[in-house]
Amino acid sequence: MHIGLVGLGKMGANMRSRLRERGVEVTGYDRNPEVSDVESLAALVEALPQSPKVVWVMVPSGDITRGVVEELAGLLGEGDVVVEGGNSYYKDDALHAERLAREGIRYVDVGVSGGVWGLANGYGMMAGGAPEDIETLAPVFDALRPDGPREEGFVHAGPVGAGHFAKMVHNGIEYGVMQAYAEGYELLTAQDLVTDVVGTMRAWKRGTVVRSWLLDLLVAALEKDPGLGAVDDYVEDSGEGRWTVDEAIDQAVPLPVISAALFARFSSRQEPSPAMQAVAALRQQFGGHAVRQATPPSEPTPPAEP
Amino acid sequence: MHIGLVGLGKMGANMRSRLRERGVEVTGYDRNPEVSDVESLAALVEALPQSPKVVWVMVPSGDITRGVVEELAGLLGEGDVVVEGGNSYYKDDALHAERLAREGIRYVDVGVSGGVWGLANGYGMMAGGAPEDIETLAPVFDALRPDGPREEGFVHAGPVGAGHFAKMVHNGIEYGVMQAYAEGYELLTAQDLVTDVVGTMRAWKRGTVVRSWLLDLLVAALEKDPGLGAVDDYVEDSGEGRWTVDEAIDQAVPLPVISAALFARFSSRQEPSPAMQAVAALRQQFGGHAVRQATPPSEPTPPAEP
Amino acid sequence: MHIGLVGLGKMGANMRSRLRERGVEVTGYDRNPEVSDVESLAALVEALPQSPKVVWVMVPSGDITRGVVEELAGLLGEGDVVVEGGNSYYKDDALHAERLAREGIRYVDVGVSGGVWGLANGYGMMAGGAPEDIETLAPVFDALRPDGPREEGFVHAGPVGAGHFAKMVHNGIEYGVMQAYAEGYELLTAQDLVTDVVGTMRAWKRGTVVRSWLLDLLVAALEKDPGLGAVDDYVEDSGEGRWTVDEAIDQAVPLPVISAALFARFSSRQEPSPAMQAVAALRQQFGGHAVRQATPPSEPTPPAEP
Amino acid sequence: MHIGLVGLGKMGANMRSRLRERGVEVTGYDRNPEVSDVESLAALVEALPQSPKVVWVMVPSGDITRGVVEELAGLLGEGDVVVEGGNSYYKDDALHAERLAREGIRYVDVGVSGGVWGLANGYGMMAGGAPEDIETLAPVFDALRPDGPREEGFVHAGPVGAGHFAKMVHNGIEYGVMQAYAEGYELLTAQDLVTDVVGTMRAWKRGTVVRSWLLDLLVAALEKDPGLGAVDDYVEDSGEGRWTVDEAIDQAVPLPVISAALFARFSSRQEPSPAMQAVAALRQQFGGHAVRQATPPSEPTPPAEP
Repeated sequence: MHIGLVGLGKMGANMRSRLRERGVEVTGYDRNPEVSDVESLAALVEALPQSPKVVWVMVPSGDITRGVVEELAGLLGEGDVVVEGGNSYYKDDALHAERLAREGIRYVDVGVSGGVWGLANGYGMMAGGAPEDIETLAPVFDALRPDGPREEGFVHAGPVGAGHFAKMVHNGIEYGVMQAYAEGYELLTAQDLVTDVVGTMRAWKRGTVVRSWLLDLLVAALEKDPGLGAVDDYVEDSGEGRWTVDEAIDQAVPLPVISAALFARFSSRQEPSPAMQAVAALRQQFGGHAVRQATPPSEPTPPAEP
Repeated sequence: MHIGLVGLGKMGANMRSRLRERGVEVTGYDRNPEVSDVESLAALVEALPQSPKVVWVMVPSGDITRGVVEELAGLLGEGDVVVEGGNSYYKDDALHAERLAREGIRYVDVGVSGGVWGLANGYGMMAGGAPEDIETLAPVFDALRPDGPREEGFVHAGPVGAGHFAKMVHNGIEYGVMQAYAEGYELLTAQDLVTDVVGTMRAWKRGTVVRSWLLDLLVAALEKDPGLGAVDDYVEDSGEGRWTVDEAIDQAVPLPVISAALFARFSSRQEPSPAMQAVAALRQQFGGHAVRQATPPSEPTPPAEP
Repeated sequence: MHIGLVGLGKMGANMRSRLRERGVEVTGYDRNPEVSDVESLAALVEALPQSPKVVWVMVPSGDITRGVVEELAGLLGEGDVVVEGGNSYYKDDALHAERLAREGIRYVDVGVSGGVWGLANGYGMMAGGAPEDIETLAPVFDALRPDGPREEGFVHAGPVGAGHFAKMVHNGIEYGVMQAYAEGYELLTAQDLVTDVVGTMRAWKRGTVVRSWLLDLLVAALEKDPGLGAVDDYVEDSGEGRWTVDEAIDQAVPLPVISAALFARFSSRQEPSPAMQAVAALRQQFGGHAVRQATPPSEPTPPAEP
Repeated sequence: MHIGLVGLGKMGANMRSRLRERGVEVTGYDRNPEVSDVESLAALVEALPQSPKVVWVMVPSGDITRGVVEELAGLLGEGDVVVEGGNSYYKDDALHAERLAREGIRYVDVGVSGGVWGLANGYGMMAGGAPEDIETLAPVFDALRPDGPREEGFVHAGPVGAGHFAKMVHNGIEYGVMQAYAEGYELLTAQDLVTDVVGTMRAWKRGTVVRSWLLDLLVAALEKDPGLGAVDDYVEDSGEGRWTVDEAIDQAVPLPVISAALFARFSSRQEPSPAMQAVAALRQQFGGHAVRQATPPSEPTPPAEP
């Protein structure tokens, strides 16, 4: 099989490598000529020999993905397949599919998980689309997915949009799981009884109920930098967590843990927090409590709540 | 009526004033001779003319209260009454009562709310103890409580401990209510559509569902310092919020809002947050995401979640 | 002044009464002929004598409001004013304003708080629109708002949309405040020490930090039905809480308390909770724990966590 | 090596099997004669040939553990070692150690994770105690722990109490992680786009960021009972989650996720929730909203928030 791959950033380049290692021919295109196999999207489409042509898109979600889809609508034809493997919002998939369908082009959305480790370990994938298109792409999915049973690293989750929906929920869960480990880590460091914090978390890697890949990664980070002194407590979020909570609100699904994890990230980026300024101001009002001035004095006095 | 009052700090001194204004004679004792009416606790007890003698204790909770109770156990006698009006943990009340009972001394615990505004407005009070002791203290409660119906500013909540238990829950609620206003305030300031944030909150003072005394105070704070630029986002907690959540856990009562308000205060005091360092470290591990170094660079790049 | 009022449900009818009592003439229209003053929207517009004509819309948000706005676009003319006083989503206001502007009609959005009590107490109002339109409406706002200083019951919060935005945040706060009281109430009922729960909450009405109108209402409910035996624990939400959390997510504002209050409502309506079924199933898997069958056995055994 | 093992319930019996399979001789005692190797605790101590004698205790925490420790204090002697491998509260360990130290008996606490799967997979263990005692027990730990590097399934976490502290935090994390998966599961089931929910979660088992043992178990549960129709949404908690949050409150460590997971369990067991009855009652008060009566009517009307 021979496919096109648009976007050769960290993820795309790794995926090209894994595909080639596993027998799928790939022509890659990137705006950066140093990594690109061809000079243009048109050249990429040209280079694909078989029919239907398959083009896998792996570029930043939003406007850039939209632009590539639009361009492909003009380059591909009846029966060709566009695969959107980036982190698109699942509601955008319907728009992409509709646009391409006007040209007779098929559309499949794939949520791809695994990060930089996917090259070596394979990628977990959730796909949305028509059964026959999923079938067409089987060799690609098989090359990308981890070794082991197919169904433990790949799913045809539903129609167009289902792949990114499933990936969105995956990432929402990820927020909650990461925060759970982080809270436990902080509690371990907050007292003196457990003298070997890194060793304790390392000992959870086998046999325990909380063993997981994220735990392995946290232990790796702690082994490199016990105390995490080199890492700032400023945590980005990249959209899927927000979409997950938005979706839950639409569906009236309570997400106390995942939303708490999202809000902890928001808080981590605030300096200062307007809400906590308001609470401090309130305490001062009713209790005559000392508050820390915006430039904190050396010794805040813990006052009593009236 | 003539009572003794131990502790003439901000709260105690105000209460002495209000009691005297409303016809209750007060002999006050404080370690600070400048505010004290007598030279010692013994002199205070000596000064009380009627029987039973009533001594109201208004000193910091914990060891200091315990010490005063112990001293009073040696100075008072059969049928006298000690009133603990500070912010004692409700489980300490049983110990105080037991200690005093060995000398035949009665014990009443009172949760007192109102802060610095109590002098003018009166204090809301929740009392725990035996009915006959509450009866004895009626003139004191009536002088301290706000004008209006007795039962809207005073309650005999139950046996010894019930007063401080009720006050503990009152303060737990207070945490949640303050945080709710603070979150709303932050959301109002986070966008450009509402151009008059202070005016908006001021307009909530009458007629709306969220009108309250805490809202009035927040508006007062904002009128003095719109933007709260002079207030640091560092918020103390004084124990009752923690006790409230501890108690809820003992009773298997879910407190999502009150606990969230408590944790927001904890977070406000962290620099940095170990948990969020751990989350940042994790993101770096799986995604090769940029993290902010402990000394942040000027331009963090928002990376994608894999 | 003489205005039109569309929608004479619980809120609209009360507002008509208050306006008339305070000297504003009102012609009201409702689809229900029994409460309507005129037979049609056209007749209502016809009945307004002065120019500009002012029509206040007080119908359910969404499609119905949209329909009324569309109809008014055809009935009113240059310089007339439509006031949307319902619970519209603030993003809809821009659409309404734009539609009406095509006919030269002005648009003001007003968030109205106060519920059934507004007739007697007046309504708290937050308005969005152009200054000259707010000026035109001053007599109406003054009749509707509570007695007392104008700025404590009314605000011109900003341009079109700002009124409903402010009302949305008001309602988000309301969710958090209600939940805080509710959690405190539950903790009071969960143990035996406080023997007078209703009296305790009643005693918070004066002098305490948590005194508020919502507390007054909760006490009123408890006085009628101590134990709340007649009330099911099923709580609706009406949109503003969801919009508030959605907006916060857009703005990266942490709302731990308001979101927890919203999710508590979602949970209250679930029977069963799929999430908690999943947790129960997990415990069974790793620990061989007994789980309650979907039809619970008489005696669940509390099992240990491994 | 030959040790005594007290408590042959589900965990203890499995541990005896694994120890014997891996070359550690075990004499087990249980009150149930059908599973016990000896007739009494005294007989068990008698049966241990070498010095120091090692007795591993694996009985329910609290009074029963306390009783066994007390009994062993009378049976063992100078230099013998008691290992408490149950789910004791870490503060109890100091009491156990002190009691035994009066007889010259050594004490080690071990948090043991792995549930019913430990027999086959080995147990993750965190130990607290003196280095020389940990050394004595090395063959036992090596037999019980999973295959692989020693430090990935066992840690000497610190002095007495550190083992159970570490296990407590482990279980707190477990609560948060389970709830995160459960929330994601619920969101997947709440809409129609993802048509293969079980397959989606199964596809997360390899390659994804959220792969973990708990995910494997949840997939196993779903494969047996898709929809979880046979499982009630009633979730017990066994103490460690509560202790974790209590400890965090003592240490001023924010635990939004772990506490939310704990409270979700509390809520799952309430029928009805007094807090949500209070919120419903409040809505009725201010809005004249319909509330569901305690015996719900067939058609609740979603009312508007004022």
